[in-house]
Amino acid sequence: MSEHVPAARPELRQDPTLDRWTVVAPERGARPGARLEPGGHGYVQAEECPFCGGREYQTPPELAARRDPPGTADGPGWRVRVIPNRFPAVRRDVPGGALLDGLFRRHGGHGAHELILEAPEHVVSLTDLSPARAAEAASVYRERVAALRADGRFAAASLFKNVGPAAGASVEHTHSQLIALPVVPRTVVEELDAAERYRCENGRCLFCDLVERELAAGRLVRESMSFVAVAPYASRVPYETWIFPRRHGAHFDEIAPDEAAELGAFLHGVLTQVERVADRPAYNFYVHAAPFAAPASVPYHWHLEVVPRTTTQAGFEWGTGFAINPLPPEVAAARLRDAAG
Amino acid sequence: MSEHVPAARPELRQDPTLDRWTVVAPERGARPGARLEPGGHGYVQAEECPFCGGREYQTPPELAARRDPPGTADGPGWRVRVIPNRFPAVRRDVPGGALLDGLFRRHGGHGAHELILEAPEHVVSLTDLSPARAAEAASVYRERVAALRADGRFAAASLFKNVGPAAGASVEHTHSQLIALPVVPRTVVEELDAAERYRCENGRCLFCDLVERELAAGRLVRESMSFVAVAPYASRVPYETWIFPRRHGAHFDEIAPDEAAELGAFLHGVLTQVERVADRPAYNFYVHAAPFAAPASVPYHWHLEVVPRTTTQAGFEWGTGFAINPLPPEVAAARLRDAAG
Repeated sequence: MSEHVPAARPELRQDPTLDRWTVVAPERGARPGARLEPGGHGYVQAEECPFCGGREYQTPPELAARRDPPGTADGPGWRVRVIPNRFPAVRRDVPGGALLDGLFRRHGGHGAHELILEAPEHVVSLTDLSPARAAEAASVYRERVAALRADGRFAAASLFKNVGPAAGASVEHTHSQLIALPVVPRTVVEELDAAERYRCENGRCLFCDLVERELAAGRLVRESMSFVAVAPYASRVPYETWIFPRRHGAHFDEIAPDEAAELGAFLHGVLTQVERVADRPAYNFYVHAAPFAAPASVPYHWHLEVVPRTTTQAGFEWGTGFAINPLPPEVAAARLRDAAG
Repeated sequence: MSEHVPAARPELRQDPTLDRWTVVAPERGARPGARLEPGGHGYVQAEECPFCGGREYQTPPELAARRDPPGTADGPGWRVRVIPNRFPAVRRDVPGGALLDGLFRRHGGHGAHELILEAPEHVVSLTDLSPARAAEAASVYRERVAALRADGRFAAASLFKNVGPAAGASVEHTHSQLIALPVVPRTVVEELDAAERYRCENGRCLFCDLVERELAAGRLVRESMSFVAVAPYASRVPYETWIFPRRHGAHFDEIAPDEAAELGAFLHGVLTQVERVADRPAYNFYVHAAPFAAPASVPYHWHLEVVPRTTTQAGFEWGTGFAINPLPPEVAAARLRDAAG
């Protein structure tokens, strides 16, 4: 039984001892900012920024944009612009399909990898824009997730943002990423399992109950008509904050357009609080939502997690899957509330 | 139902939606090198190093040491020295015990947190010592794990090393850490589950079979009489390397003294290969071993994982629990083999 020889095409490989997949993506090593090789590139800043308005020719043709009329695709004048990633982790033109070879399970790297540029001007954080512009950005997040779901060929998508080199950003200019995958992320699978068990035992949504308990415990960070943010009970890092929609719903892309706009402004507020207490740290945020094919009745409740990167994940975290957090989330929540508008 | 107020004492909290524990350890924020607060300390280097020989008075009294006779505890002349961590994640004097309060499960932060200083001179990596000295260090690793297991009050221990700020080291001077915990690390629980299932279905050890398959696939990195190192199939990062003992065994501390010494020299060789191909990167390594209370017959196979930190974990990794690796492990293995002595 001969082992398959890896091509330059991306593929997903599952760890034989854990439910963990790695996207082996040779093309990613070539991207600006990638530090794979000694002496590799650094962090792409303003001078050579391909994401700034006026440099549209430096990127692949856009997939969508918000611009004032009259505007032409790939011309200037956009407010939010969506482009394919030039250095994709997964690709539409790679066939999917699972293969099991003895202990080794893999999937073709079929997927999509998009970038959402939230501003033509060279800013770093979502908070460098107005709340109204963050609202428009979140509306585009919703539209792009809906578009990938409607495609029908992907299992799920991960929407996320990296701000600052310590959070894994390789380009400084504010942007979010959307990766559609042939398998459902492990974290979502586990949350779904827990929520399914909880509904069997309690007849209710785990996340709806959790939000109530977080608020009762004094870990509120921010609230609006449709959203609530908390410093979660088992926060892994200082100032970790989770945003939940009050209205139960499994799918992020099924929120109403006005809810998406409210989410953007709300997220802008939460990030402002985090940046005040932690001195503008590097941060990530990402959305957890139900698998694309799941019906709306699936026992899941989409949410968005903000992870400031003021501490470094070390050998303990890598080795155990646990975290060490020096800041009790009750203290974090109080400080974040004090830093609100 | 009132929520408990967190004390300054460490406690473990389980995420209500995942099998993930966080050690909430307020004391850790006070340690040198902790960057919890804006303007916090940086990376402790030679000038103010408390781990150098001659500065024994700057650390708590030693728990064990290897020194030439005549020597006195906490005096100079040691080759390897074990001390309690002054800023522990968990503590012997904190009561253990699990508590479930509605959705929130916690454990008292009962445990131990030791530092193993592998050299009195101010060096950074294990490779800055001779293979013979790395062999002695690994013998001390084995002894300390055995001592914590013999204590009888801990569920498991995590032995790990952080080298370089990008790998979470807060002190430059070479040292490893050993944290005994009241719960078994999530990664070990998952590997154990997989290995148990595999034995039920195949009657063999998952890890023994895995090593054979990794070698057949050409992902060998290094081998010796008792050990073999491979670039695993689903490597998460460039040059990730796993070391397995050829002799099946569940418990790290049950290896023979000469095997421990051989492991140290072997690890020294692997790290030398990694440092040559990746230009002395920051790195972590950690040991995965069976829970302390498990019998020797438990279907587990201890191993050691080396994780070079040349890439940054970003929003995708945090959000999905997956990894993106730009370097196929087959390529990594070939380069690492070429870099061998």
